[in-house]
Amino acid sequence: MSAEPLETRLRSATKEVVIGHGHRFCIIGERINPTGRRIFQEQLRAGDFSAIERDVKAQVEGGADVLDVNMGVPLTDEPDLLAKAIQLVQSHTDLPICIDSSVVEALEAGLSVYQGRALVNSITAEDDRMAAILPLVKKYDAAIIALPNDHDEIPMEADKRLDLTAKIIRVATTEYGIAQADIVIDPLAMPIGADTGNSLVTMECMRRIRDEFGVNMTCGASNVSFGMPDRHTLGAAWLPMAMTAGLTSAIMDARSPQIVDSVKAADVFLNHDDWGMAWIAAHRAKQAASA
Amino acid sequence: MSAEPLETRLRSATKEVVIGHGHRFCIIGERINPTGRRIFQEQLRAGDFSAIERDVKAQVEGGADVLDVNMGVPLTDEPDLLAKAIQLVQSHTDLPICIDSSVVEALEAGLSVYQGRALVNSITAEDDRMAAILPLVKKYDAAIIALPNDHDEIPMEADKRLDLTAKIIRVATTEYGIAQADIVIDPLAMPIGADTGNSLVTMECMRRIRDEFGVNMTCGASNVSFGMPDRHTLGAAWLPMAMTAGLTSAIMDARSPQIVDSVKAADVFLNHDDWGMAWIAAHRAKQAASA
Repeated sequence: MSAEPLETRLRSATKEVVIGHGHRFCIIGERINPTGRRIFQEQLRAGDFSAIERDVKAQVEGGADVLDVNMGVPLTDEPDLLAKAIQLVQSHTDLPICIDSSVVEALEAGLSVYQGRALVNSITAEDDRMAAILPLVKKYDAAIIALPNDHDEIPMEADKRLDLTAKIIRVATTEYGIAQADIVIDPLAMPIGADTGNSLVTMECMRRIRDEFGVNMTCGASNVSFGMPDRHTLGAAWLPMAMTAGLTSAIMDARSPQIVDSVKAADVFLNHDDWGMAWIAAHRAKQAASA
Repeated sequence: MSAEPLETRLRSATKEVVIGHGHRFCIIGERINPTGRRIFQEQLRAGDFSAIERDVKAQVEGGADVLDVNMGVPLTDEPDLLAKAIQLVQSHTDLPICIDSSVVEALEAGLSVYQGRALVNSITAEDDRMAAILPLVKKYDAAIIALPNDHDEIPMEADKRLDLTAKIIRVATTEYGIAQADIVIDPLAMPIGADTGNSLVTMECMRRIRDEFGVNMTCGASNVSFGMPDRHTLGAAWLPMAMTAGLTSAIMDARSPQIVDSVKAADVFLNHDDWGMAWIAAHRAKQAASA
């Protein structure tokens, strides 16, 4: 027997986005993140937020449903920076935000200024991380991304990831009063270049997490092609596979038409786009734009 | 418990191709088929086979593992045409052939001249079709594509397709002595434009056919996008989804880099391309060709 599929509801001040097994895939734009972007880091240190405005625009136009915002710039006041960035992003778009930081104080600063119902990125199965972050998730009525790993180790066995998923759900619901529908599990998509068996383990986890818990899932989709050539083609194939296995959202490159179109095509085949109307409408819009 | 995965071995005079759940996806080039190709039909009627040579070359270069050969031209001697076409194709490539006809005499004519171990396309679960074709499959030591439909009706329920699959396997193995490994089931991929729930039924069939029987599967992949815009993008998303569900080969457009690359990417994620070596080598070859 499969668990009932759950819906995770995110909101900005004016717009709601639903993540769910019966819904269109939720595209979480990954771009507003200074990791690996040296110039962006320098701009942020200098108080120049102009790149964020461009990143919002490109991702909204590309088809993002939610925007991840990470301000992990070394040697800055990350809580202050994240709060400012969130306010700026919310002034430019009505998409809900995924507030992304490894720093608890930054998450709280972000949550305190956020207008709506945010997705928080992230906790692990470690007790101290849950104890630090889940009370904030509860206080601000947010949803939470949770990684089924422990002590900074990524378990390679599906059984272990399932055990840690069960632990997270049990602790978050019973000890912190978080609704199971608001726990979004990251089944840990690892680079295929490191071990070509990785993806089978991740897909097994997705199937079992959907069947046993009914929760939603997300992951850093760009990670799977890390270190390989022709990454967009790999991403465009991997996402439909993962969607078939039960993935309901991804933090991904919303600016790549190849990858976004592939997700939209998979939505048609998963019967999340009635009569392909959205697919056909998007095709017509592209034709009109190029005419 | 899952059934043991089976291997279907096809051969030309000099080359073996294995279809199997633990192997790279088998790309069967669909192009040598006059259906919907008016000029090609006229050429074939006039005895001009030059298009076949071009179609062989384009599909071999595109990445086909097997070539489907269909000579269903109205008002011609199809057995004679099919036998000639097969001999011509075998003089131009060492890829095995899928001998494709609805005419029993044409299948026999094709089998009688074929060098190697062919795949025959196709039977249904209808007793008269099985009685006419399976003795030929046995006599010429071929493999057979079987569609789980009855009396020309396509059952829309997965249960019914599974029942007919079980019937085909039982009859073919016990009454005609065909090895279960040589039965390749076509789970019936219907156009998504006709009913957007079609694809979910087909994918459920694929999962259950793999788990219950371990047999290989193929289908006419281009069919799923029939009538929809941007068909190559739909095909490039659908095949990785179907491969995830258990499809091990497809009769498909081997001349579309977008679709073939998507299949090759899915092979990496299904751990059918150790360390992604084939993926990396293909990327390098493309770079060298464009340098």
